Amino acid sequence: MTAELISVGTEILLGNIVNTNAAFLSEECAKLGLSCYYQTVVGDNEERICETLKLALSRSDIVIMGGGLGPTQDDLSKEVAAKVCGRKLFLDEKCKKSIEEYFAKKDTPIPDNNWKQAMIPEGSVILENPNGTAPGVIIEYGEKRVILLPGPPGELKPMFRDKVIPYLMKMLPGTIVSKIVKVCGIGESAVEEMIEDLIDAQSNPTIATYAKTGEVHLRVTASAKTEAAANKLIKPVVKELKNRFGTAVYSTEEHVTLEMATVDLLVANELTVSTVESCTGGLVAGRLINVPGVSDVFKSGFVTYSNKAKRKIVGVKKSSLEKFGAVSKQVAEEMAAGAHAINKADVVVATTGIAGPDGGTAEKPVGLVYIACYVCGTIAVKEFRFSGNRALIREKTVAASLCLMRECLLEYMSKNTFGKK
Amino acid sequence: MTAELISVGTEILLGNIVNTNAAFLSEECAKLGLSCYYQTVVGDNEERICETLKLALSRSDIVIMGGGLGPTQDDLSKEVAAKVCGRKLFLDEKCKKSIEEYFAKKDTPIPDNNWKQAMIPEGSVILENPNGTAPGVIIEYGEKRVILLPGPPGELKPMFRDKVIPYLMKMLPGTIVSKIVKVCGIGESAVEEMIEDLIDAQSNPTIATYAKTGEVHLRVTASAKTEAAANKLIKPVVKELKNRFGTAVYSTEEHVTLEMATVDLLVANELTVSTVESCTGGLVAGRLINVPGVSDVFKSGFVTYSNKAKRKIVGVKKSSLEKFGAVSKQVAEEMAAGAHAINKADVVVATTGIAGPDGGTAEKPVGLVYIACYVCGTIAVKEFRFSGNRALIREKTVAASLCLMRECLLEYMSKNTFGKK
Repeated sequence: MTAELISVGTEILLGNIVNTNAAFLSEECAKLGLSCYYQTVVGDNEERICETLKLALSRSDIVIMGGGLGPTQDDLSKEVAAKVCGRKLFLDEKCKKSIEEYFAKKDTPIPDNNWKQAMIPEGSVILENPNGTAPGVIIEYGEKRVILLPGPPGELKPMFRDKVIPYLMKMLPGTIVSKIVKVCGIGESAVEEMIEDLIDAQSNPTIATYAKTGEVHLRVTASAKTEAAANKLIKPVVKELKNRFGTAVYSTEEHVTLEMATVDLLVANELTVSTVESCTGGLVAGRLINVPGVSDVFKSGFVTYSNKAKRKIVGVKKSSLEKFGAVSKQVAEEMAAGAHAINKADVVVATTGIAGPDGGTAEKPVGLVYIACYVCGTIAVKEFRFSGNRALIREKTVAASLCLMRECLLEYMSKNTFGKK
Repeated sequence: MTAELISVGTEILLGNIVNTNAAFLSEECAKLGLSCYYQTVVGDNEERICETLKLALSRSDIVIMGGGLGPTQDDLSKEVAAKVCGRKLFLDEKCKKSIEEYFAKKDTPIPDNNWKQAMIPEGSVILENPNGTAPGVIIEYGEKRVILLPGPPGELKPMFRDKVIPYLMKMLPGTIVSKIVKVCGIGESAVEEMIEDLIDAQSNPTIATYAKTGEVHLRVTASAKTEAAANKLIKPVVKELKNRFGTAVYSTEEHVTLEMATVDLLVANELTVSTVESCTGGLVAGRLINVPGVSDVFKSGFVTYSNKAKRKIVGVKKSSLEKFGAVSKQVAEEMAAGAHAINKADVVVATTGIAGPDGGTAEKPVGLVYIACYVCGTIAVKEFRFSGNRALIREKTVAASLCLMRECLLEYMSKNTFGKK
């Protein structure tokens, strides 16, 4: 079955916003096993929306339109879709009531034009919107479906997940199940090489790779008559992937991030953590603190960008800075040890590197980074040579820091079988 | 004149990557005064690329295709475009040489399939690619133009800026000039209200607003016969915008970010800076350190997420934490004062807030944030009530911190007319 996406909004055509909805919907369609051959963006123009929708309906089974459901005269998606599918619009009392309730909760009078959002093409499925005033709509047009979703990602995404996926699942022959395997510390091409045979041999389940900064996600997707049968197909492939990548697999859960997996290890082992950062300048701490509840283990963090701060704040020796330079294995080690001396954190990660654009030399080029990780008395240091601009080098360093911390924690755990310090 | 974008790549249709090229190209087209009515994404499929290109050529003057210029058999953009425009491909010796040189520099043997990239449709304009092996191509097809660009943003963006814009400028009747006015600390709807009359009255120049987290960018675009004439049209509008927004305008330069503008003020006044962060957990320091050369003014930063860290590291009083709570005006002030006591920084910004999802109460809901800014003996504290999820609340807090720091610095400067401390 084929799906096609239409994003409606002049703000996308002007480049005011990046079309992240399309990436989200595409990935969700792929997960459902829907083949998506086209995405189109069109402005708030009746004639052009009409043309685009007609073309999409001529070549795809399911057309998903995002945007153009707002209250203004510019918002035309529903009106055009009704016209193309030959449906009249009527005022839906339930939608009207939802809008009244929405504004009552906000204690704001209802603007006149908001009633437009309660107008629904006859005979369609209404998708309630708990996050806004525009309900979604599914028009069942013969064998085809036109799915209209509100444009704001905070409304579109939950509506698609909670309402559209269950609807589509019922339509699809059989079931699609997918499972994610998240790998850190190995580059995308290396990952692909390690599973070339599996990718070549794949048909059902399929394996798709998604490169993220410092991580690669592998999505294993199977289709079968029942969920149990699909799971049965997926299970050995996920097991094989786990075998090949070993401890580099940090999670097989959709919602678990690398920082969550790392914080989970800290919590499970009752270990506290601290950061001391030069080139990343607070971003490693920033990512750890993405995790709600990290306060149980996060002691304190230091940003020591200048040499003076490295000396004054975490006690790096002047002689080390002079002899080895700020970007060196020795200084990274001393930073980690110094932070531990202050706050007695069980685990400390320290970063120092040349993020550029200036400051590189032949011997120490831009992209050279040292990351040290202290875990209960032992310090490991790793050298990295990253490519990219200043922002990318820093982002890669943050990911590598979390990855190294995870590695060191796993090693610590393997040596302390009873888990407790 | 109309332009249309086609992005080629199955990885976009699968949702593996977000189509940031389209947003970039759209904004650049808008800046040139080109009307862009459609963007399409199509996979690496000959028939579908062909159909999409034909449709685009039937309705737009300029078709910009990104992607599909790689060395593999899947990369089809150039082949399809040549076919649609009735051109033969030939091996361009200059392109061949560039590819040889590119690989020689990397000290890597040239894969056989890379020669494909030196095949050029006859009679077209070749766009050199200093950042990769795929040259860009412009096919002049009657009055229409097909512009083929490599997909990686690091190659597409500089090629568009350096080669395509000058080419298009020559084609366009007259000249388009645009100027950006960057505003911080005022929300998008408030900004729009403040200039409603200007937006309503606009025709040439036009004013477009671009909402960013904690910032709004206003782009003023004028078309005229000459650059001087366009600049003359723009000047009074930019002046009027500066009048209306006053010190909230932090820059009128394309490349200047809010953190750069803030660091520039610090450097100009020879003031050093420090951060002490709770809810933002290092991200304010992380953004300041985005600025190359910040080491001249950045003293050191502290991440004090837990109450204990606030006490031990920057000396917040236990009694203040008990009486007012960690998220309070008083604690924000003490954090800023405490960091100054340690590193004697002239300027300190401190953040404390409830980023959620848990931890909110009726009295102190999720989104409540206090930001303190110490400047040479004076502390200002501001309360904020942000909406959004944990990540967004933290991001908004970072932007508001930079904004408050800027405000306090400007006030300090207005009181110290000689600038020096």
